[in-house]
Amino acid sequence: MTGPFEPLDSGTIPRFAGLPTFMRLPVAEPAEVDIAIIGVPFDMGTTNRAGTRHGPRELRNQSSLMRRVHHVTGLSPYDRARVADCGDVITDPFDLMRSLDLISAHYAGVRAAGALPLTAGGDHLISLPILRGLAADGPVGLIQFDAHSDTYDTFFNGSRYTHGTPFRRAIEEGLVDPRRFVQVGLRGAISDAGNYDYAREMGVRIIFIEEFAERGVADVMAEIRDIVGAERTYVTFDIDGIDPSQAPGTGTPEIGGFSTREAQAMVRLLDGLDIIGADLVEVAPPFDPSGLTALTGATIMFELLCVLAGVVEAKGKR
Amino acid sequence: MTGPFEPLDSGTIPRFAGLPTFMRLPVAEPAEVDIAIIGVPFDMGTTNRAGTRHGPRELRNQSSLMRRVHHVTGLSPYDRARVADCGDVITDPFDLMRSLDLISAHYAGVRAAGALPLTAGGDHLISLPILRGLAADGPVGLIQFDAHSDTYDTFFNGSRYTHGTPFRRAIEEGLVDPRRFVQVGLRGAISDAGNYDYAREMGVRIIFIEEFAERGVADVMAEIRDIVGAERTYVTFDIDGIDPSQAPGTGTPEIGGFSTREAQAMVRLLDGLDIIGADLVEVAPPFDPSGLTALTGATIMFELLCVLAGVVEAKGKR
Amino acid sequence: MTGPFEPLDSGTIPRFAGLPTFMRLPVAEPAEVDIAIIGVPFDMGTTNRAGTRHGPRELRNQSSLMRRVHHVTGLSPYDRARVADCGDVITDPFDLMRSLDLISAHYAGVRAAGALPLTAGGDHLISLPILRGLAADGPVGLIQFDAHSDTYDTFFNGSRYTHGTPFRRAIEEGLVDPRRFVQVGLRGAISDAGNYDYAREMGVRIIFIEEFAERGVADVMAEIRDIVGAERTYVTFDIDGIDPSQAPGTGTPEIGGFSTREAQAMVRLLDGLDIIGADLVEVAPPFDPSGLTALTGATIMFELLCVLAGVVEAKGKR
Amino acid sequence: MTGPFEPLDSGTIPRFAGLPTFMRLPVAEPAEVDIAIIGVPFDMGTTNRAGTRHGPRELRNQSSLMRRVHHVTGLSPYDRARVADCGDVITDPFDLMRSLDLISAHYAGVRAAGALPLTAGGDHLISLPILRGLAADGPVGLIQFDAHSDTYDTFFNGSRYTHGTPFRRAIEEGLVDPRRFVQVGLRGAISDAGNYDYAREMGVRIIFIEEFAERGVADVMAEIRDIVGAERTYVTFDIDGIDPSQAPGTGTPEIGGFSTREAQAMVRLLDGLDIIGADLVEVAPPFDPSGLTALTGATIMFELLCVLAGVVEAKGKR
Amino acid sequence: MTGPFEPLDSGTIPRFAGLPTFMRLPVAEPAEVDIAIIGVPFDMGTTNRAGTRHGPRELRNQSSLMRRVHHVTGLSPYDRARVADCGDVITDPFDLMRSLDLISAHYAGVRAAGALPLTAGGDHLISLPILRGLAADGPVGLIQFDAHSDTYDTFFNGSRYTHGTPFRRAIEEGLVDPRRFVQVGLRGAISDAGNYDYAREMGVRIIFIEEFAERGVADVMAEIRDIVGAERTYVTFDIDGIDPSQAPGTGTPEIGGFSTREAQAMVRLLDGLDIIGADLVEVAPPFDPSGLTALTGATIMFELLCVLAGVVEAKGKR
Amino acid sequence: MTGPFEPLDSGTIPRFAGLPTFMRLPVAEPAEVDIAIIGVPFDMGTTNRAGTRHGPRELRNQSSLMRRVHHVTGLSPYDRARVADCGDVITDPFDLMRSLDLISAHYAGVRAAGALPLTAGGDHLISLPILRGLAADGPVGLIQFDAHSDTYDTFFNGSRYTHGTPFRRAIEEGLVDPRRFVQVGLRGAISDAGNYDYAREMGVRIIFIEEFAERGVADVMAEIRDIVGAERTYVTFDIDGIDPSQAPGTGTPEIGGFSTREAQAMVRLLDGLDIIGADLVEVAPPFDPSGLTALTGATIMFELLCVLAGVVEAKGKR
Repeated sequence: MTGPFEPLDSGTIPRFAGLPTFMRLPVAEPAEVDIAIIGVPFDMGTTNRAGTRHGPRELRNQSSLMRRVHHVTGLSPYDRARVADCGDVITDPFDLMRSLDLISAHYAGVRAAGALPLTAGGDHLISLPILRGLAADGPVGLIQFDAHSDTYDTFFNGSRYTHGTPFRRAIEEGLVDPRRFVQVGLRGAISDAGNYDYAREMGVRIIFIEEFAERGVADVMAEIRDIVGAERTYVTFDIDGIDPSQAPGTGTPEIGGFSTREAQAMVRLLDGLDIIGADLVEVAPPFDPSGLTALTGATIMFELLCVLAGVVEAKGKR
Repeated sequence: MTGPFEPLDSGTIPRFAGLPTFMRLPVAEPAEVDIAIIGVPFDMGTTNRAGTRHGPRELRNQSSLMRRVHHVTGLSPYDRARVADCGDVITDPFDLMRSLDLISAHYAGVRAAGALPLTAGGDHLISLPILRGLAADGPVGLIQFDAHSDTYDTFFNGSRYTHGTPFRRAIEEGLVDPRRFVQVGLRGAISDAGNYDYAREMGVRIIFIEEFAERGVADVMAEIRDIVGAERTYVTFDIDGIDPSQAPGTGTPEIGGFSTREAQAMVRLLDGLDIIGADLVEVAPPFDPSGLTALTGATIMFELLCVLAGVVEAKGKR
Repeated sequence: MTGPFEPLDSGTIPRFAGLPTFMRLPVAEPAEVDIAIIGVPFDMGTTNRAGTRHGPRELRNQSSLMRRVHHVTGLSPYDRARVADCGDVITDPFDLMRSLDLISAHYAGVRAAGALPLTAGGDHLISLPILRGLAADGPVGLIQFDAHSDTYDTFFNGSRYTHGTPFRRAIEEGLVDPRRFVQVGLRGAISDAGNYDYAREMGVRIIFIEEFAERGVADVMAEIRDIVGAERTYVTFDIDGIDPSQAPGTGTPEIGGFSTREAQAMVRLLDGLDIIGADLVEVAPPFDPSGLTALTGATIMFELLCVLAGVVEAKGKR
Repeated sequence: MTGPFEPLDSGTIPRFAGLPTFMRLPVAEPAEVDIAIIGVPFDMGTTNRAGTRHGPRELRNQSSLMRRVHHVTGLSPYDRARVADCGDVITDPFDLMRSLDLISAHYAGVRAAGALPLTAGGDHLISLPILRGLAADGPVGLIQFDAHSDTYDTFFNGSRYTHGTPFRRAIEEGLVDPRRFVQVGLRGAISDAGNYDYAREMGVRIIFIEEFAERGVADVMAEIRDIVGAERTYVTFDIDGIDPSQAPGTGTPEIGGFSTREAQAMVRLLDGLDIIGADLVEVAPPFDPSGLTALTGATIMFELLCVLAGVVEAKGKR
Repeated sequence: MTGPFEPLDSGTIPRFAGLPTFMRLPVAEPAEVDIAIIGVPFDMGTTNRAGTRHGPRELRNQSSLMRRVHHVTGLSPYDRARVADCGDVITDPFDLMRSLDLISAHYAGVRAAGALPLTAGGDHLISLPILRGLAADGPVGLIQFDAHSDTYDTFFNGSRYTHGTPFRRAIEEGLVDPRRFVQVGLRGAISDAGNYDYAREMGVRIIFIEEFAERGVADVMAEIRDIVGAERTYVTFDIDGIDPSQAPGTGTPEIGGFSTREAQAMVRLLDGLDIIGADLVEVAPPFDPSGLTALTGATIMFELLCVLAGVVEAKGKR
Repeated sequence: MTGPFEPLDSGTIPRFAGLPTFMRLPVAEPAEVDIAIIGVPFDMGTTNRAGTRHGPRELRNQSSLMRRVHHVTGLSPYDRARVADCGDVITDPFDLMRSLDLISAHYAGVRAAGALPLTAGGDHLISLPILRGLAADGPVGLIQFDAHSDTYDTFFNGSRYTHGTPFRRAIEEGLVDPRRFVQVGLRGAISDAGNYDYAREMGVRIIFIEEFAERGVADVMAEIRDIVGAERTYVTFDIDGIDPSQAPGTGTPEIGGFSTREAQAMVRLLDGLDIIGADLVEVAPPFDPSGLTALTGATIMFELLCVLAGVVEAKGKR
């Protein structure tokens, strides 16, 4: 039996038909659901190649290929939680600071409504206002899948709010507990030998791709689970953590990244943590002519959704 | 002042945000509006390169670039008529005949609801069941912008329902009055010297691109208006009527077609006719990597929408 | 010394010259050769994104890059067997059931001619009529490389013949022995938790990508060889078994698939089995702008050809 | 005989070799030359699809195909004026207002150096700070080739500086004399029926594409020359004035535009006017996979360069 | 009734099936036919962007969209002449001079066989050895549709055989009568003011695109027919004569070219001349991702084929 | 503190601004630097799909994404050595033998200037004249990352200088010591069973991808370091050694190649060898629409640069 928040049935309505909502789900308000899938079409934080403002639309488009039941667990997130497409956060393309406020206010509302947000970005700067909206009560843990640390201080004459700086700000603002903050997949040359110093000094655990490749998914994820522990944790997945052969459409690609097989295995091992929300960011459709990046992103979003559905079920919300 | 059926305001909500409905309009039922924009994602009639099943989605996507007010008339269709995105007709990808019935039933419903349908195809076969739904009372006039006649008899072992045959069937079924039927833009080699015989014998007026190029838009459109006269007329616009440099993403491109400037001028000269509906067909996104075809198609749909809004206004429906 | 069925010599005739036959081979009739390479340009079984009707042409095109001698074995299939391009099976794009009959009749003819068929699809539904043509004497074993099980029952109002259903039909029709049937590489969410029930109940061995990743090629292939044993076995390779970074041009891509390195290793380990034919399906050129999918497909076809040549040699046919 | 500011000789150095400077010219400072070709990689004024920040680089790349001598006049701009690639204006991607100041200061410097600037944008907002730099002495005439008026007042909560507003600001700031301001090529639906009111009230002459199509190049250009007269005039060419079939790579394409043949003819008829500078804006490479837009843009830049070289020669600068 | 040299019937064999021969014709030897369609995959004459070596294959591929009967004349070339795909000329990619000899020998053979050749290039240098093969008896007239004169003397340290020089060589070698030689469509900047001097001094008639645009197709073609007169004439069509919006895939695109509508009209007006052969050159598939250039080229080839069929019929060859 | 040969600072000058020199470095002469990055835009050695003549330009373009400091070592090559973009070698596209001489003379000059060359190709034939320029004193060791052996003898009527033959010539000419020559990554079918005989007989160590996959990076690289020892060694990296999913834009792609992760690990393990120069060849931009191949190539070039900087530092050159 299916509930009121079910994807369109592809055995009746072909996948190419209908409005491309996330996962072919109904549109609803956060207050009506347990998990709110939200788009944040915003790329004002981007320092080089923009385009993630178009990310939510293309992630919705490719998510039409997603199905209901996870083949490993045999469980459907839609049996475990009420899930809907809760639309986009509308920002102001000519006022970065106002846009950050609009986003944080929106997520404070989602939190107040009692829904767990699953977000489609947008560039990585959006994680900062999302955390402002979700972590008002005190710092949360953070698991970051990414090629880059995003803990720089400033760019271009002192700009403090860019997609290279959100997590420095999040630590400074007390939104994230740096001792419960893990970054995995980092790689690629850096601008300055001191680029990782701040993160290291604050106690952030950085797992470079080389260490990851040597230890493997299971060992690395065990450590990550230890670090964040049983307390509230946010998950942020930058698509550039994945190799550009599988996710070329992003502004700052770095070769040598996660395979999607590794990425899926890692996300599945988030199961059982107290996840308060998750985002998938940095999909830039203008650099993704084949749509593969958005397909990869939509599939990772489905994996994250399954994890969030487990959180909902565990809390007995339904 | 704006009514309840207005496009999203691009001065407030960026064009890249929000669900890609047709023209960024609200979703509604035909009974709620004067003009129902409808998608028919269907390409079972295609003899060579398929893909128009994905047409409605990409036409919706590119229609986000459309604005409110026609720059020549200074009028907005949304001030003259209630217009909405009325969703897609769901067909059965494994049963052509049943799909035709589903489409004709749907359009009979639209007609019963009192709305004028503006359709995004789909391949050209869909015009047949649309006409079945709209022309139950007797034959209508037909204006066809196209590179091909689509009045063949059969293909492949006697198949009578393909995108090369809809208007032969429509004449045979008494849906279209062949003496009030004009085809303009035809060109390209044909399979057999007798390919136009049926249409000519029935009295259909064929205006090849060569005649069109010599006479020009104004003269040709004057004749077309004469032929269809003041009675009920349907308009079908096959995107392959337009030159493949401006509409490459279609299954059967023919060089030497209409320029978009010519096409726009022609559609504007439909003003004042008693149009009972219109369609824009044969946009095949898999062959349209740049999106230009869908942009062209969406703009022609806006031009057709303005003409239909004039019909609504003239009839005093509001 | 070379025989009458040799590829064009690329040291004399550049690879960009000449008609693009499979592997740059001569065109011949099945009765003239030991191995018949055949195209089946057909995608009427496709439920979402069509385009595999164009597969054989593009596989031929990319196969111009193939060379003569396998670098691991040092053997050339053209020294071990007579091989030719035996053209395409002509189907009826407006009659699915008749098309299936045309395909099965064609393969019955190939079998009668004594040739082993190596097929370029087309969507996965074609494996059903191929098996009808080849397995008239009784059920054969089946090795399926794929992301999907393709053992669903029906789609869309009861359609029994789609690219999601061929192997359910093949079991029901007694063409395949389910206890000698292995599926490897399956992954991705499913429509219903019961989707694998039929296959499992019939005794089909399903090896998900997760099990494959843990055990590795050698171990998995040893089990597969055990399951099919020494009796007649058919091999079907759905290109979507391979990761979409290496085979993006397919209708239902699933991330996290086989690497080509794994796929090549697996096909090589089919050596010595009693293979009665093989197919490579689901290459959809409209979704493959770079041609990489067809290149991957053509290379897998060459690997399959080498295995089939070993069968021919073992049977002393020359 | 060739001077010190000559393009690389393509009869000696193949066009694919060497650094892609504008027109394969040497790099120099504005003070060294009569005409300074300058890039302004900036798209902070863009309301929908960004990407013109990458415009200068791709315009340089495609300009390698340009040659020396205009085939109609038989004159080379490099014989009539000293011309060089004077690099890019470096802006601040996180501070729009500061970026405008950086641009205007840069062009004030170019003017002080006595060079005529030919600019490669960037989005259309850059014309405002360029005019601030060049028109400090009093309002200049303006000839604008464009699909859009760009005289809106504000967007998004009152933003006054966007690529839809530069020429309203330029009139307000006394940089442009609205009675010597002509816009040609305008078309496409508008957001509000009053969108052209400001321009019309100020006395700007708007020539819509429909009027242009009826009157033709020669008649329209005669009027334009009359309007701007013999006094100082700036020329701004928005690539979206040209039809999207010939210039698809732009953020706000409008079908039905100038053909390149028409555009070239119009630019040539600027000859003899007192042009103080010119720009070519809105080339967005992420939406221009084929490079055709940049090729078109680079060729229009060559035509503008020939006109500017005529100005230099007329003034006896050499 | 159809003869032995008919295209595959698209009403029976879908256009996507079968080997992609030119126009879906049978393969035959020149001696068997009246008109031999021949590929020359060769681009050793290219000075900048190569790729026309892949031209014949992609022209064959797109020619599958061509049909039998010209819609203006109502005549089929296949009813008027025996036509076949006569394969490719095999050249030596490492020996330009030997390749030219291989081509000229091949065309001498075609001429000896009594067939009229219709060639798919290859770069424009191939016209020289074709003329060597066809014009051994004395100079012929030449009609050249092109953006460039191709009458330069040398490139790069004195290379005399490039795609910028074939017609200078052809005049020097007495293959072409310069007073019966017309070039139409020329445009674009030139390397040196004297670039056209040789052609003009020899009496070649150059019709620039500007003159063409002013006079129109009918007037220009009347002059061209006068110039070449009733004697033997060769026709060479460089795809870059056509506007790059309709033929982007070429090595040296120039904006402002022929529309395809103009090009088709011109080719049709070759009817009745004593054409001894024709070529379509400079289609470079690596720069033609959409296939539009090859589609345009294949359609122009069909138009040329119809003209050649008229020559055959006039001579009573059948 | 930064020296005179530093990349542009991306915190001040956005990565999309400025001329695309290699790594955003200054332009200089080899005599001014320790490491000279050089482009060789040349593809006359290519037997099938050309286009690497455009390689240096696109590698420069994508190298704008590179940063300063290696994230594993924490060292910047720009702190260890003076590095600059030393421009392109100008060759003669119509004279292969002269071009080889021009290249070898150029590299003899680089060597005389005391700089280590890091080269961006161009096809693989360029390694031969580079070695002629660098190894005049006697044979050097050679480490070749590649899918192909490139030790064939001749192609097409005896051509000895192609991109399939450079290393046979290099051995014959005494430029490379075959016992200090290792090839790794070889795979793919070969034209003849004897294709590897020459290399094997001369003592070249061939490590096929299958052996590599089994042994892993560390073990293979240990052997490679043993083979070349402490003496002078050249490194050549053919981008087709990497899997076509990560490097599709190349003329002769072979599936099943190195992952970029493996490739990066291998290059890092060249540290400490006496490398006298390195090249990265076979990037063909016309087959690389996404730019991923050039991105991969530019990143491998950065890794090679770090190794070369270690050589410079070890020799105390600064």
